[in-house]
Amino acid sequence: MFERARGTRDFGPAEMGRRLAFERICDEVAAKFGYQRVATPTFERLDLFTAKSGAGIVDQLYAFKDRSDRNLTLRPELTAPVMRMVAAQGGQVAKPARYSYFGSCFRYEESKAGRYREFWQYGCEVIGADGTLTEAEVIAFACAILDEVGLTGWQLRVGHVGVLGDALSALGVSSDNARDVMRLLDKGDFESLAGTGLGADALAALQELSALEGGVETIAAAGEILGRLGVELDSLSELSDTLGYLEGLGASPPSIAVDLTVARGLDYYTGMVFEVMVDELG
Amino acid sequence: MFERARGTRDFGPAEMGRRLAFERICDEVAAKFGYQRVATPTFERLDLFTAKSGAGIVDQLYAFKDRSDRNLTLRPELTAPVMRMVAAQGGQVAKPARYSYFGSCFRYEESKAGRYREFWQYGCEVIGADGTLTEAEVIAFACAILDEVGLTGWQLRVGHVGVLGDALSALGVSSDNARDVMRLLDKGDFESLAGTGLGADALAALQELSALEGGVETIAAAGEILGRLGVELDSLSELSDTLGYLEGLGASPPSIAVDLTVARGLDYYTGMVFEVMVDELG
Repeated sequence: MFERARGTRDFGPAEMGRRLAFERICDEVAAKFGYQRVATPTFERLDLFTAKSGAGIVDQLYAFKDRSDRNLTLRPELTAPVMRMVAAQGGQVAKPARYSYFGSCFRYEESKAGRYREFWQYGCEVIGADGTLTEAEVIAFACAILDEVGLTGWQLRVGHVGVLGDALSALGVSSDNARDVMRLLDKGDFESLAGTGLGADALAALQELSALEGGVETIAAAGEILGRLGVELDSLSELSDTLGYLEGLGASPPSIAVDLTVARGLDYYTGMVFEVMVDELG
Repeated sequence: MFERARGTRDFGPAEMGRRLAFERICDEVAAKFGYQRVATPTFERLDLFTAKSGAGIVDQLYAFKDRSDRNLTLRPELTAPVMRMVAAQGGQVAKPARYSYFGSCFRYEESKAGRYREFWQYGCEVIGADGTLTEAEVIAFACAILDEVGLTGWQLRVGHVGVLGDALSALGVSSDNARDVMRLLDKGDFESLAGTGLGADALAALQELSALEGGVETIAAAGEILGRLGVELDSLSELSDTLGYLEGLGASPPSIAVDLTVARGLDYYTGMVFEVMVDELG
């Protein structure tokens, strides 16, 4: 009897039926939002992923050499490949372009329950458009999929990677020190923070800011805290605009949480980030 | 600018739209024929493919090692993986099972126009059923896809790997020699064939057999040639039965060709084989 490769799985008819139904729902919603499906190869040249994320990422990749000694890898995600495709097409893509995709991705990690080395991503890219309305549109797309799938009681969690960085910059923290300050804030280590040369007012404001928890009202509260220091942030008003557009785009998440001190993926993300928490399957 | 890996391709919205439409057509026809989609991992343990095809196949595979020094490979085809899955499920699969699949496969070869190193296969397996009606059903499935896709003027080419072997065996050729005789027949080298110890009557019959060309009537002609030597083959009447069932299964190929001396893939195939030739896109 032959064994399956470690960390992989088979999809029998029942599971595959559900997967295909999910893909179909995503495609139907994507079409309504103006997205077109594209596809890229299962493996890419290694440098496509190391250029942005550094050589350290190779440990998490299924990297291999072909017979001509070229470095290749199974793709770990689909954004970089799609952007490579768009760049290769040069000026031929009409902007804004809305692309969606569904494909398998691969990561080399210890396999454990629920974590597989081959997994599937449905995703989208909006190319050649930016601004708060575009960001709201992407969130609304995700919300529409969750609604169509029939999930209930889920929570939309929204943040903005720029808020914290912009606040530190406005408070006079140099960009060299900002990373350290963010790490300490993330750990809640206010004792060490006091040693970074930040003024007492600024420190109190940051402490208050990172303690904020709640829904859309969190944004106004943050504006007030920063306003006391004479700081006004574009990123904060952008986030407010983005969330304000959601209803008009047909998105009404069961609940919304705003996290203004999100520091996750700072190297990769630059603005609004969102995720969805699902408590129970409807 | 990052380059695509050699031998791979991107699918922009227009091409991907056609690919998805083709997949949908195949799935709709598959459902009518009682097939259920399944899926297996993109990579498998190398031994799954070398066990049957020998170590020589490794040159045509994207084989690689994982960090635990296990030999893995991107799958070159989907039959072996699906049968591995069925074997792993043991007795839990209700028979007959009709499975269909659509996935990317990989072969390492010189990339040239129209030949890619990553390519897609839509295929099916019928598990736990055999016989001429089952074989006819698989052909009818393929014909229905071609009809639904809108192709016209295509030709169904049917053969039976067993006919030639059975005929040689009935003519007293040992199984040790059969491979050589088949190769010479395939090359049309009747001079060398005369030196293999075959009688003059047998040699003439084989020459006549391999010269046969045409449609369903070819089977009767072959029966007559072999009948003169007192040989009657089950494989020949099976092929006749299979083709006879097609009309009842709704399949009416624009034209049918029968090739009784098909030697291709002898190691892998054991019975009826078929392919479709498309001259023009409708």
